[in-house]
Amino acid sequence: MAKDFVKEITARDDDFAKWYTDTVLKAKMADYSPVRGAMIILPYGYEIWESIKHSFDKLIKATGHEDMVMPMLIPESLLQKEQELINGFAPEVAWVTQGGTEQLQERLAVRPTSEVLFSDYYAKVVHSYRDLPLKYNQWVSVMRWEKTTRPFLRTSEFFWQEGHTVHATAAESHAETLQILDDYEKVVSEYLAIPVVKGQKTESEKFAGAKETFTLESMMADGRALQSATSHDFGDKFAKAFDIKYLDKNGEQQYGNQTSWGLSTRIIGGLIMVHGDDRGLKLPPKVAPTQVEIIPIAPNDDVLAKADEIQAALKAAGIRVDMDHSDKKPGWKFSEYEMRGVPVRLEIGPRDLANAQVVLARRDTGEKTSVAIADLATEVPALLDAIQKNLYQQAAEHLASHTYTATTFDEFKEKLGNHNGFVKAMWCGDEACEKAVKKETKAGSRCIPFEQEHLSDHCIYCGKPADKMVVWAQAY
Amino acid sequence: MAKDFVKEITARDDDFAKWYTDTVLKAKMADYSPVRGAMIILPYGYEIWESIKHSFDKLIKATGHEDMVMPMLIPESLLQKEQELINGFAPEVAWVTQGGTEQLQERLAVRPTSEVLFSDYYAKVVHSYRDLPLKYNQWVSVMRWEKTTRPFLRTSEFFWQEGHTVHATAAESHAETLQILDDYEKVVSEYLAIPVVKGQKTESEKFAGAKETFTLESMMADGRALQSATSHDFGDKFAKAFDIKYLDKNGEQQYGNQTSWGLSTRIIGGLIMVHGDDRGLKLPPKVAPTQVEIIPIAPNDDVLAKADEIQAALKAAGIRVDMDHSDKKPGWKFSEYEMRGVPVRLEIGPRDLANAQVVLARRDTGEKTSVAIADLATEVPALLDAIQKNLYQQAAEHLASHTYTATTFDEFKEKLGNHNGFVKAMWCGDEACEKAVKKETKAGSRCIPFEQEHLSDHCIYCGKPADKMVVWAQAY
Repeated sequence: MAKDFVKEITARDDDFAKWYTDTVLKAKMADYSPVRGAMIILPYGYEIWESIKHSFDKLIKATGHEDMVMPMLIPESLLQKEQELINGFAPEVAWVTQGGTEQLQERLAVRPTSEVLFSDYYAKVVHSYRDLPLKYNQWVSVMRWEKTTRPFLRTSEFFWQEGHTVHATAAESHAETLQILDDYEKVVSEYLAIPVVKGQKTESEKFAGAKETFTLESMMADGRALQSATSHDFGDKFAKAFDIKYLDKNGEQQYGNQTSWGLSTRIIGGLIMVHGDDRGLKLPPKVAPTQVEIIPIAPNDDVLAKADEIQAALKAAGIRVDMDHSDKKPGWKFSEYEMRGVPVRLEIGPRDLANAQVVLARRDTGEKTSVAIADLATEVPALLDAIQKNLYQQAAEHLASHTYTATTFDEFKEKLGNHNGFVKAMWCGDEACEKAVKKETKAGSRCIPFEQEHLSDHCIYCGKPADKMVVWAQAY
Repeated sequence: MAKDFVKEITARDDDFAKWYTDTVLKAKMADYSPVRGAMIILPYGYEIWESIKHSFDKLIKATGHEDMVMPMLIPESLLQKEQELINGFAPEVAWVTQGGTEQLQERLAVRPTSEVLFSDYYAKVVHSYRDLPLKYNQWVSVMRWEKTTRPFLRTSEFFWQEGHTVHATAAESHAETLQILDDYEKVVSEYLAIPVVKGQKTESEKFAGAKETFTLESMMADGRALQSATSHDFGDKFAKAFDIKYLDKNGEQQYGNQTSWGLSTRIIGGLIMVHGDDRGLKLPPKVAPTQVEIIPIAPNDDVLAKADEIQAALKAAGIRVDMDHSDKKPGWKFSEYEMRGVPVRLEIGPRDLANAQVVLARRDTGEKTSVAIADLATEVPALLDAIQKNLYQQAAEHLASHTYTATTFDEFKEKLGNHNGFVKAMWCGDEACEKAVKKETKAGSRCIPFEQEHLSDHCIYCGKPADKMVVWAQAY
C-alpha cells in the first residue's frame, strides 16, 4: 500500500513542476478554488504560514515595529499619485467598480501593495522630527491579476506582510532596509533552512518607485531561483509625491524617507522546492506543525499506554508531537507522514516496549535508530536540531555545487545549458546587456550580491569594462 | 495641561456618539481612511484585536477546529447557489468587474461572508461519514457596502473570524452551534468583562439561509444593544444547495449538516462603549495591551534605577508593563494613559523611594494606594484581577438596572421612553407584531433569551396568547 501511495507523486526528475503540484495537493497544503487564480490554503499550509509569521513578527517587534492594518481597497486617484508605482502595477490590478446596486464614481483597486495608503497616512500624522520614525507593518493578502497559477508560487491573491516605515534621514531609511533584510535572512536561513544569496537588485529589476531594492535569492532543487523576500528604500520619492514633511530640530522643513519590505506565502513554495523529495515534503523541524509522529506497531494495551506516556513527556518537553493510533496499516502511515514531511517518526511495538526503547526514523536521511525511552526527552530535541542543521547543510551544498562562474558568454551559456543553476558573471551596468542575456539564455539578473568577486574586467555580454558581479539564473 | 487634554473628549452624557468617536480617535485605536466606509486600525486597536483573536483561537483549537483560508473573491454564480443568502447580501456586495485591462466575463464579489466557498469545498472533499466532522475557521476581513460609517461599529470592511463546519447529523451541527456560543461567552464575558444575554434570534432576525441563529447581546453604556457574536445552524440547507453528501455507516447517502459563526472587530466598539468614561477608555486588564504604566515623578537617578528594576520584576511576573520617562509633565502623562485605558498607573518619586514604596492608581475607580515595592509582584496581579472583576461587575449592574419588564404596550413605551435599556416582554411569534413594535418604538427584538420568564400570557403588541419572552432594545 505504501508503494501505491508513493506512486501518486510524480518523480521529481521526471517532471519537477508536476512533482511540486502533486506534493502540495497530496500533503494538503493547499487546493484549487473555484476562483480564477486563487487557491485555498488548507490547515497544514496555513499552520506553516502562521509559524513563519510568528517568527518574523517577533523579530520586527523587538526592533520597535508595530502591526496595524490599512483598508483593502484603494481609490484610483490615490494609486496614481506616484507614477512609477501605478505604471508598475496597473496591468495587474483587480478593480471594484460596483458597490451594492451603485455604480462607483471612482474605481477602487483591490490592494496590490499599500505604499500609497501608508504614505497618505504619514502625510497626515508626521509633522515634527519628534514624530519619527514610524515603523508599521501589516499581515494581509494582496491581489495581482495573474494569467497562470501555481499554488503558493503564483496566485492572484497571496498573503504577505508589508512593512512601511518613515524616517527622518536617508541614512536611517537605508539602514532600516538592511536591518530588515537581515531579519528576513534569519527567518529564511535559520528557520526555514534555506540558504540565501543577499544582494541588491539592478535598476531594471527593482521595485516600482524604489530608489534601491535589496533581495534574498534562494536556489530551488531544480536549480532555478526564487526571490525569497525583498526590502525597498524609497528615499524621499514617495514623500515628495505625498507631501510627507516634518520640521527638523533646526525648525526647517524636510521630506521624510521611507522603506517598504515584504515576505509572502511564495516562500512556502520555496520551502517545498528546496527540501522535498520523491516521497513528498521534508519540513525543517523549526517550522514543522508536527515534529514527531508516534506510530504504535501491532499495539497491545501496554504499548498504547506507554505511547501515551511518551507523547505527554515529549509535549511537556516543548515538542510538537502527534500520535496516529488509527486502524490504518503501518505502511500506509509511514508513507503518509513521510509525504507530509514530519521530521521524525517514532515507532513503538511490543518488542520495543520489552526492551524499554523505541525506534526513531529520520525523514531527512531515512536513518533508523533505537533509543532508550528514558533518554527520549534529551535525544529527540538533539535529533530535531541535527535534522534542522542537515537540511540547511544539504541545501547549502546544492547551492554551492550548482553555482558556476563564467568569464565569457559562451562559457555562460554552456554552464547554464548543461546544468541548471546560478551563474556568476561580470556586468557593465548597461540594461541592454542585461536584457540580451535574459533573451538569449532565459537567465535574468537575480541580484548584485553583497559578497562581490572580481571574476574579470569585462562585461559577460558586451565585453566593455565591468566592475559588478551579478548572479544570473532562471527564476520562478 | 491635563485638564485641557480631557476637554478634547466630548462628555459622554452630552453626546454619546461624539464621545465614542473622540475616544476612538484620541486613544489612537483607529483613524479615518481615504477609502469610503473603511477605517485604518491603528496599532493600539490592532493589538486589542490580536489579543481577542488569540483568546478565541485557543478555545476553538482545543475543540479540534483548524484555521485555514479561502479566497477573498467569489464568482457571482457561486454566490447565487443559495437563494436566501444572495438575497440577504446582494445589496451590500462590492463587485470586482475588471482584472488588469480585462473586462471580466463574470463579476466577482469581495466576500461578504464565505459560506458558499466552504460549501463548495465540502462538496468536493466529503464522501464518507469517516470524513466528518470538518471544523474549519478563518481570520479575515469581509466587505459589506455601508452608507454610513463609525469606526469598529459599522465599516464597509471589517475583520472577523468565520467558522464553518460540516457534521454528519442535525443534532451534531446544533450542538456545535451552542458550544461555539459558549466559547464566545467566555471571550466576551470573562476576557472583555462584558456581560451578555444569550438567546436565539427570531425568524426575521436570523442570518440569511440559517435554520437557527443564536446570539450574545450586550448592553452599551447608553442602554442600546450590541450584537456581540452570532452562531448559525444551517441544518442541511446549504448541503442541499451544494450537494454535500456522504455515505453513512449503513452505506446510505445523507446530506451533511453545517454551521457558521462569527465574532468581529465590532466587539471592540462594544468594549469601548461598555467600559469607557469621560476620561476615555477603560480596558479590562486581560485585554489591555499595557496593564501597568510606570510614571517616575521628578525622578533622580536612583528613582529611575528603581523604576527600571520594578519594570523588569513586573515583566518577569508576566505583566504587560510600560514606562514613560519622557520629559512630558506628569499631569499630561496621567491624562494620556487614563485616556488610553491603562488599568493601573504606578507612580514612583524620591519620597516613595525613601519609603520603599510606590503609588498604584486604579483606572476603574480612581483609587490610589501606597504599596511596598517588595510586595508588588503579588499585589499588582491581585489588583489587576480585582479591576477585571470590578469592570464586569459594574457592567452587570448597569445591565440589570437598565433591563425592564413590561406586560402592556403602554408600559413598554413608557419604560423605553424614560430610560434607554432592554425591555423584556412576551411575544406571540407573529412577525407583524415584531415589526410594529420596532416601527413604533425603534426597539427591535434582540433575542428570545435562553433564560425565559413567564411575564404574562399575552403578546405585548396584539394581546393574543404568547409563550415566548423576547428582549427588545434599540441596537447598534
